[in-house]
Amino acid sequence: MSPSKKSGLTAKEKLRPISGFPELLPEERRVELDWIDKIRTIFESYGFTSIEPRTVEPIDVLLKQGDTDKEIYTLGRLLDIPNSDREPNYGLHYDLTVPMARYVAANMEKLDFPFKRYQIQKAWRGERPQDGRFREFMQCDIDVVDTREIPLHFDVEIPTIMHQVLKSIDAGPVFTRINNRKILEGYYSGLDIDNTSAAIRLIDKVDKIGFDGIANLLKLELKLNTKTIDKIFQLTQIRGSGRQVVDQIQRLGVHSDLLDRGLEELTFVMQELEHNNEEAFSVDLSIARGLAYYTGTVYETRFVDYPAYPSICGGGRYDNLVGDFVNKRLPGIGISIGLSRIFAKLLKEKRIITDKKSPTEILVIYSRGAPYQLVSKTAQTLRQRGFNVEQYHEDRKLNAQLKYAEGKGIPWIWFPPNNIDGEHQVKNSVSREQQPADPTTWIPEKG
Amino acid sequence: MSPSKKSGLTAKEKLRPISGFPELLPEERRVELDWIDKIRTIFESYGFTSIEPRTVEPIDVLLKQGDTDKEIYTLGRLLDIPNSDREPNYGLHYDLTVPMARYVAANMEKLDFPFKRYQIQKAWRGERPQDGRFREFMQCDIDVVDTREIPLHFDVEIPTIMHQVLKSIDAGPVFTRINNRKILEGYYSGLDIDNTSAAIRLIDKVDKIGFDGIANLLKLELKLNTKTIDKIFQLTQIRGSGRQVVDQIQRLGVHSDLLDRGLEELTFVMQELEHNNEEAFSVDLSIARGLAYYTGTVYETRFVDYPAYPSICGGGRYDNLVGDFVNKRLPGIGISIGLSRIFAKLLKEKRIITDKKSPTEILVIYSRGAPYQLVSKTAQTLRQRGFNVEQYHEDRKLNAQLKYAEGKGIPWIWFPPNNIDGEHQVKNSVSREQQPADPTTWIPEKG
Repeated sequence: MSPSKKSGLTAKEKLRPISGFPELLPEERRVELDWIDKIRTIFESYGFTSIEPRTVEPIDVLLKQGDTDKEIYTLGRLLDIPNSDREPNYGLHYDLTVPMARYVAANMEKLDFPFKRYQIQKAWRGERPQDGRFREFMQCDIDVVDTREIPLHFDVEIPTIMHQVLKSIDAGPVFTRINNRKILEGYYSGLDIDNTSAAIRLIDKVDKIGFDGIANLLKLELKLNTKTIDKIFQLTQIRGSGRQVVDQIQRLGVHSDLLDRGLEELTFVMQELEHNNEEAFSVDLSIARGLAYYTGTVYETRFVDYPAYPSICGGGRYDNLVGDFVNKRLPGIGISIGLSRIFAKLLKEKRIITDKKSPTEILVIYSRGAPYQLVSKTAQTLRQRGFNVEQYHEDRKLNAQLKYAEGKGIPWIWFPPNNIDGEHQVKNSVSREQQPADPTTWIPEKG
Repeated sequence: MSPSKKSGLTAKEKLRPISGFPELLPEERRVELDWIDKIRTIFESYGFTSIEPRTVEPIDVLLKQGDTDKEIYTLGRLLDIPNSDREPNYGLHYDLTVPMARYVAANMEKLDFPFKRYQIQKAWRGERPQDGRFREFMQCDIDVVDTREIPLHFDVEIPTIMHQVLKSIDAGPVFTRINNRKILEGYYSGLDIDNTSAAIRLIDKVDKIGFDGIANLLKLELKLNTKTIDKIFQLTQIRGSGRQVVDQIQRLGVHSDLLDRGLEELTFVMQELEHNNEEAFSVDLSIARGLAYYTGTVYETRFVDYPAYPSICGGGRYDNLVGDFVNKRLPGIGISIGLSRIFAKLLKEKRIITDKKSPTEILVIYSRGAPYQLVSKTAQTLRQRGFNVEQYHEDRKLNAQLKYAEGKGIPWIWFPPNNIDGEHQVKNSVSREQQPADPTTWIPEKG
C-alpha cells in the first residue's frame, strides 16, 4: 500500500482513543511504575527471576491449550499485499502463561529447575471492551515449573505472594476463593460422569447462564439425569473455611481416589493459608477457572468492595501445559495479577493519588544573565548527589520559571548566583522559605 | 478459523525461535533489567517522566511522517474471517517517536510544557532480520516537546544524557556524529536546488549506493549539473570538530540565511559538548538521518570497536512532527537508544557478564524433618529484612538442595534448626565457612 492509498483519517480521528487500549497520563503512569517496582521487588524477594518472552507466538501455540474463546490478534504486513489472504501464522500472546510454557520447553536444557520466573508484560485480546476488560493490558505473573512433582508448598506460597503484592499497592480489601480441580473431577467421576472436563466447563458458566440453563445443558449435552445434576449443584454451592468445606463434601457421600487426593491437598493448603491470613482466603467449590489446563488448586481474587467487577487475580496448578511441548512431565503452578484491571478500577474510584507530574525534585533557575555553564554545573552537581534535577532551559523571567515549577509540582527551587563567587540559595515550594545553600552539601529537611 | 483448521506445526516447529524476535535467557535478562533500571534512573535525574502509549496506532498515523520504508505489522483478528480482506486499520508502532507525538497532541491540554518524557518500550518492524536489526526490539527514548521555541540547551543536554546512559551500561567506547539539517537545507538552497529534502534523502543513501550511484540519481531525478553535484559532495565529506567544520563550510563560498543559522546552532552545540567530552562528539556533514521530520541538529552514535554495526543511538530536532496533528507549532527534540541492538552486540562479543541466574541471595534449607512453619518463618524473617530469599520447597536430602543453590549461584545457605529452640547457621557458598547466625540480626560480611 503506497502512502497515496491512505484511508484518510481526519486529524481529529487520528487523535481519538482506541477502545480497549487504555493510556495513562504522566501522573498516573508514575503510580503504575511505582506499583511495578514494588511488585518486582516482592517477586524477587521470593527468588523469582524475570523473563520477557517475545510478544508473538505461532497461532498453533496460542491455540494449543485453553483460552480459545479469547479473540487472538494476528499479525500481517502492510506492504505484503500479494499474500495478504494467506493463512495467518503469528499472533500476539493473549496471556503470559502460554508463552512462558513455550519458553521453558524451548530452553529446558539451559534452565535450573524448579524454575521460578516472573513476567510483567503486556498481553492482547480482541474481545469486546467493557468495564475492566481491555484489548491491551498489563499482567504480572509468577510461575514455578519443575521436572519433578511440585510440592504443595507452592500452592501456599504463590497466593501468599499475590496477597502481599495487593497489599503493597494499596489495592484495598480483596478476597480469594480457592478450589481444587481434583475435587471437581474426582467428585464427577464418583458420580460416574464420563466427560468430567466438559462438565466442569459447563458449570463454570453458571454465573452467565444460571442454574436452569446449566441444568438443561447438562441434560442435553452430557445426558445426565436430574439426580446427578442435583448432586453437582450441591457441590457447586459449598463454600467456607477449609475444615467446614471438607466436612460438607464428605457428607455428600460421593467417593473416588481422586476426590480424596483433592480433599487432602485442599486441607493442607487452606490450613497454611488460614494460619497466615484467616479472612482473605476461603474455599468456593463453584470456582473452576475456565482454562482446560488446570489440574489442582485454583485461585480467583476479587475486590471486596466491587464484587461484580471481574476477577483481579487468578491462577492455579497445571500438570501438562509445559510438558506437552516436549512430551515430558513438567508440572507447574502460578498466578496472574491483572495490573491494568486493578489500576483502572482504583483510578475510576479515585483511590489512587496522582499528584506528581514528574520525578523532578529540584528546578535550577536560569535567570538574570547567569552564566550558562554555572547554571549547568549546579544542576549536574546536585544530580551527581542523587537528586532529580531540571535545569531551566533558557534565561527567562523568573515568574515563568516559577510557574513551570508550580505546574509540575517541583518541591525545591534552586537559585544559582550570577557569578562564580556568589551565593547559592534554595527555596521550598510549599513553605516558601528561602535560604543560602551549597550544592555540594545541601540536604533537604524532611517535611 | 476453528481450531480444527490449525496449520499443524510439529512440536519441534512450535519451539523454534522466530527470526528477528530475540529472547534472552534468565541470566541475560537480569542484565537487561539492570540496564533498564540504570537508564530510567538517569532519565529521571534530568526530570524526564515516563509515558507508555498503547503499542497500536491507526495505520494513517504510522504512515504520517517519516519512516515508511520500514515494514509495518498490521493487526487482524483470528476469528474475523468474513472481513479479513478489508483495509488494515491498525498497526504496531515501529518507533517510539510517532506514538509520543500522537500522545502529546491528543493530551495537549493536560500536559505541562516543555513536556519531557521518556519511554522504554518495545517496537516492531517487519524488515528482513540481520545483524543488529530485529523485528521486535526495545528502545529507550527521551524527547522534549514545547509550545514555544525549544532553546539550544536541549540540543546539548540530550546527547549528554545519552552518553551518560551508554557509560552507565558499560557500552564501551562510542562516537557520536552530529550534523544540522539547516546546514544541509541552507547549503542546498544556496546552490539553487529546489527540492532540498529530496536531495538530502538521496545523499543519505551514499553508504548504500556509493558516490557514483548518487551522482547519477542527482542528475536524473533532480536535474542537477556536475558543478552542483561536486559542491554537494564537497560538503558531504566535511567532518571534524565544531570550529574546524564551520571554517571549512564557510570556505566553500555558498550562502543563505538558513545556512548561517545552521552554522550558528552547530557552533553553540559543539562548543558545549566539546567542553564536556571532547573525544566522543564530532561533526559529520554526511549524517542526515533519513527521516523527513528532522529540521535541525541530528545525532548518530556507533560503537568505536564495531563501526560497521548499525547505529546504536539516533535522533534530532523536529519542528513539525507533533504540531501537525493539531495544526499548531509544537517543536521537539529527542534521541532514541537502541537497547536491543546494543545488548545483542555486546552479548555476542562476550562483553556482558551473565553469572546470575536468579535474584536469590539466601536459600533456606528444609531438611531432616524440620518443622515446615519454622523453615517458612525463617525465610519470611530474612525477607522482611530486605533479603531475596528462597525457602527450599520440600524436605529433601541436603545434597539435592545444595546442588540447587550451586546451579543458581545462590551466595548464602541458611540452616534453620530442627526445633524451635535450636541454633540457626549460615554458610557462605564460596568460602564454605559456616557459622551460627540469628535471622533477625544477621548481616552478611562483604566478600
